Amino acid sequence: AVGLAGTALANDDLTKLSEDPKNWAMPTGNYANHRYSELKEITKDNVKSLQVKWTFSTGVLRGHEGGPLVIGDVMYIHTPFPNIVYALDLKNDGKILWKYEPKQDPNVIGIMCCDTVNRGVAYGDGKIILNQADTTVVALDAKTGKVAWSIKNGDQIDGGKGESGTAAPMVVKDKVIIGVSGAEFGVRGWTAAYNLKDGSLAWKAYSTGPDAETLIDPEKTMHLGKPVGKDSGMNTWEGEQWKTGGGTTWGWFSYDAKSNLIYYGTGNPSTWNPVQRPGDNRWSMTLMARDADTGQAKWLYQMTPHDEWDYDGVNENILVDGMEIGGKAHDVLVHLDRNGFGYTLDRVSGELLVAKKYDPKVNWATEVVMDKNSEQYGRPQVVAKYSTQQNGEDTNSTGICPAALGSKDQQPATYSPKTKLFYVPTNHVCMDYEPYKVSYTAGQPYVGATVSMYPAPDSHGGMGNFIAWDAAKGEIVWSIPEQFSVWSGALATAGDVVFYGTLEGYIKAVNLDGKELYKFKTPSGIIGNINTFEHGGKQYIAVLSGVGGWAGIGLAGGLLSPENAAAWHGAVDQGRGGQDDAAVVGTAGLGAVGGYAALADYTTLGGQLTVFGLPE
Amino acid sequence: AVGLAGTALANDDLTKLSEDPKNWAMPTGNYANHRYSELKEITKDNVKSLQVKWTFSTGVLRGHEGGPLVIGDVMYIHTPFPNIVYALDLKNDGKILWKYEPKQDPNVIGIMCCDTVNRGVAYGDGKIILNQADTTVVALDAKTGKVAWSIKNGDQIDGGKGESGTAAPMVVKDKVIIGVSGAEFGVRGWTAAYNLKDGSLAWKAYSTGPDAETLIDPEKTMHLGKPVGKDSGMNTWEGEQWKTGGGTTWGWFSYDAKSNLIYYGTGNPSTWNPVQRPGDNRWSMTLMARDADTGQAKWLYQMTPHDEWDYDGVNENILVDGMEIGGKAHDVLVHLDRNGFGYTLDRVSGELLVAKKYDPKVNWATEVVMDKNSEQYGRPQVVAKYSTQQNGEDTNSTGICPAALGSKDQQPATYSPKTKLFYVPTNHVCMDYEPYKVSYTAGQPYVGATVSMYPAPDSHGGMGNFIAWDAAKGEIVWSIPEQFSVWSGALATAGDVVFYGTLEGYIKAVNLDGKELYKFKTPSGIIGNINTFEHGGKQYIAVLSGVGGWAGIGLAGGLLSPENAAAWHGAVDQGRGGQDDAAVVGTAGLGAVGGYAALADYTTLGGQLTVFGLPE
Ligand SMILES: O=C(O)c1cc(C(=O)O)c2c(n1)C(=O)C(=O)c1cc(C(=O)O)[nH]c1-2
Ligand SMILES: O=C(O)c1cc(C(=O)O)c2c(n1)C(=O)C(=O)c1cc(C(=O)O)[nH]c1-2
Repeated sequence: AVGLAGTALANDDLTKLSEDPKNWAMPTGNYANHRYSELKEITKDNVKSLQVKWTFSTGVLRGHEGGPLVIGDVMYIHTPFPNIVYALDLKNDGKILWKYEPKQDPNVIGIMCCDTVNRGVAYGDGKIILNQADTTVVALDAKTGKVAWSIKNGDQIDGGKGESGTAAPMVVKDKVIIGVSGAEFGVRGWTAAYNLKDGSLAWKAYSTGPDAETLIDPEKTMHLGKPVGKDSGMNTWEGEQWKTGGGTTWGWFSYDAKSNLIYYGTGNPSTWNPVQRPGDNRWSMTLMARDADTGQAKWLYQMTPHDEWDYDGVNENILVDGMEIGGKAHDVLVHLDRNGFGYTLDRVSGELLVAKKYDPKVNWATEVVMDKNSEQYGRPQVVAKYSTQQNGEDTNSTGICPAALGSKDQQPATYSPKTKLFYVPTNHVCMDYEPYKVSYTAGQPYVGATVSMYPAPDSHGGMGNFIAWDAAKGEIVWSIPEQFSVWSGALATAGDVVFYGTLEGYIKAVNLDGKELYKFKTPSGIIGNINTFEHGGKQYIAVLSGVGGWAGIGLAGGLLSPENAAAWHGAVDQGRGGQDDAAVVGTAGLGAVGGYAALADYTTLGGQLTVFGLPE
Repeated sequence: AVGLAGTALANDDLTKLSEDPKNWAMPTGNYANHRYSELKEITKDNVKSLQVKWTFSTGVLRGHEGGPLVIGDVMYIHTPFPNIVYALDLKNDGKILWKYEPKQDPNVIGIMCCDTVNRGVAYGDGKIILNQADTTVVALDAKTGKVAWSIKNGDQIDGGKGESGTAAPMVVKDKVIIGVSGAEFGVRGWTAAYNLKDGSLAWKAYSTGPDAETLIDPEKTMHLGKPVGKDSGMNTWEGEQWKTGGGTTWGWFSYDAKSNLIYYGTGNPSTWNPVQRPGDNRWSMTLMARDADTGQAKWLYQMTPHDEWDYDGVNENILVDGMEIGGKAHDVLVHLDRNGFGYTLDRVSGELLVAKKYDPKVNWATEVVMDKNSEQYGRPQVVAKYSTQQNGEDTNSTGICPAALGSKDQQPATYSPKTKLFYVPTNHVCMDYEPYKVSYTAGQPYVGATVSMYPAPDSHGGMGNFIAWDAAKGEIVWSIPEQFSVWSGALATAGDVVFYGTLEGYIKAVNLDGKELYKFKTPSGIIGNINTFEHGGKQYIAVLSGVGGWAGIGLAGGLLSPENAAAWHGAVDQGRGGQDDAAVVGTAGLGAVGGYAALADYTTLGGQLTVFGLPE
């Protein structure tokens, strides 16, 4: 009972910290993933005079995702591999209070599909939790940086199955929720909860496999209002393919205290060659609602059955209470999926309320069927021309929109309770996709498609938009064209300002109509998430620059050079780069290198924190 | 004749460019090394409202010395190894116009004594000249970044003698002057002039050796008013020791068009163990005045005969016309030497006018003898207690001030013609120094002393000062204590502001009385040189951050970890680190690691440009 009281307090503490807008106490802003701040010293009227207050180099190059946590007088920042964590003293211009640098096998770099990113550390119970690239999960004393406990979430790199870690942990009550990466290596995904106190495993729920391992109840776990039935994580796969079937969990978690449910999505089925894995491939590409204490699945919803495009379903789920839809108020979950559909579901029942395209160029499916009586209920209606399954192996399906990295990837949107709108960083990219046969070897790439990407044709010529989304109606309210995908996380504030970052390195502030109010060029492309906090009575905006991620892999991985690109093909797809340098480079990095090549004209690598505030 | 006309124009062009304060056309600001700007939009009154306008990450970690060149609408910046050069478009927030990245053998890193630094690129005749770490000198078309010519100044890394390149080139008329590094490897230093047109060698002047190779005339080349006599670069050495005798030329060049002389200093004699190399070790530790066209030496002055402390004489020489000294106006050269004496010489005759300590803690010598009739004329009077020669091999001489890195190292001072004062970034560091016997192997470290460094005792506790120096009187006018050595280059402007950067990463602006007016924490420690330029009618201040250099080698080389420090000792001094981790770390990096260990609490690696300006 003493223990319980202690842990209950731990969670109350975090909830309280995250409700105080002076802090930015969890990577997602709050449990609902709003990334919204009540702070309003910085407003639409004064944001134009924003200034850089101080800066900090992280000492690490490559892609910096996630953002700073701020708790009281201390800011915590993290880096991509080697996953350094710094505690910085806000009372002293960011003096380093402590630094933690894990020792990790550098071979892990080779099994990270989409740059050596890390989406942030979590705070709970006086500890900072870090999900390392090598899947070590470590709890650090927030005051000293000393290791409180350390456990292995996944396997070892050498002789392992290619498991890695990039997702931000979420502390929920007395546990910390951790995801895993590696679907490009045939990793069978799972989500695990560890006890915050000592790192012992509380539960582990696989995305595929038998009910006992997926923590799915054949009777009680629902899919669109119907019980899923026995071993639903196995019986839409051929043979034992579910064992190497992907469905990794490298995105964001949400938590709803009322229902005690956590929400997250699972990634693509492995391989990218759909012809090789007949069936719906459950529960890859699936939203999951699970009991936070036990991991038991309450409901599931598979957005992209039998994925043929790598439309991982891991994007964040934003929780909104009492959203009016069709005249009824719902506690909803809003999920803008890689596949280009923005979904709004009743998050208690898992009922599908809205599913609409949030980029007008999405063409792989015409719609998601909303008729509950249809056999196709909840399923996207695939356009034959863009079906890489139907076109078959070794056929290049062209002009598919969105590209594999989706109309949106991991870059998280923000929700403003004031406007009831979502502000969403998006991609505006299409692709050619040619599946090919692969065989599985543990720890080796298991990709099975050659991809090339380009700006959505017949549009504004750019590769991204920053949009306002009405999730009740499923409508784009406004859209700001961007030259490159907006790969940063967004921030909305009570000052009626919305912030986002661009791959060229600009931080931009726009008003509620999408009009640009302020921009500043930070040292490197922004794929981090913009956060805000208050210290000493002043509001600050903070962001990590550091170009990379999948969109920036050409720069981050040095793949713009033909030699390196050829080496990449040698390692990943048996040298399927193509005949000439242009093709070899263009299709490297799982297709992102060519599409984003022009980024090299604007920015280069470098991890830096920039902190902005108003003039004195 | 056509060619001559062309090259004469080239030089006129550069002179004109460097006289227009809108540009920062040469690394040293002007030929006189003033690092002073006539720009005065930014003044002592408004500098407090300075803002960061834009930033750029260089994509490279470790120490960033030198600073941006600005010519018209283009800014050129360079990085430490691998020595990338970027041309940035000032009309477009620093968009990358071109990037040049040489391919260099990474083994060169191992033969660079004091971090992988580079002090900047030079402009001339439409070309950008880069002195690479591997001693390749390359001329790039300033418009396109394409290689115009490329030559080898030094030897190859593998199988070579340990020659490397860090010094900024200086374009003088139709030539480019280039230095060489490597006295910690027994490199015999030289200075070379290459024809700007095609990179062919114009002349090469060794620091030691026979007259034909030192370009010294026994009759006409003067030392303190007397002809130097035959083979003066050999006959103060034992046997052939001059062949491995150091005297490298890794510092700054100045040029006086009136006399057509270039000025520079030579570095320490090799090895650091003075007992092993009897004699004055000429012309190490020497100021040299040479004809720019032929390289012929006009005069020489050896500041530290028979160096026993590694007080390289390479610091910049600042040229001032008509300085009143003892009632007479002289065209002078002012040189604040590593050895702690500030020298003022008549730069035409080489007459010594002033030699005074510019840090009150300097104790290795009592004075420099100024009596022309004394046998000791021009020589420092060494204090026996601090003579590592007299104390002998394997004896630890303690409490020597300054430390090996001097009262000032490569970090260049600025001169204001308005105040007639020099603003000087200094070190305030003392040392223990224990010489030991070494044998020479080509390409291997040839150091011969174990050093540890610490803040000057019984002082303000810090390791640096930023001072104003009156070179006519040899007096400190004011002194600002700093926690760490001031390792950045300074800038004075007509706005009555003086700028410098600190190893913690602050850029600071002070008024003419040394009162702080503004400070801002850039992403990483500053060892770069602060420059200013005007564009679009606005004045900007620009600086490269990126901690490193000798002072920052603990961070830059990762030598704060006992394992790495031990490996360093294994490679450099046969494992003489000492018994415990503290000693091993403390004496690593030629003694700098221990002294500057606390720097790790303030900053970490990262190369970034920050550009400041006034609010709109
Ligand atoms: O399947 C996986 O396990 C996995 C992992 C990751 C990751 O952990 O970063 C990405 C992806 N897939 C992926 O499909 C993807 O688009 C992606 C983008 C990024 C990124 O950080 O920019 N990571 C990942
Ligand atoms: O003897 C040499 O050849 C040589 C080279 C260099 C260099 O090239 O950087 C330094 C030194 N010596 C040296 O003594 C020294 O104090 C030093 C400091 C630095 C620096 O950049 O911080 N370089 C060098």
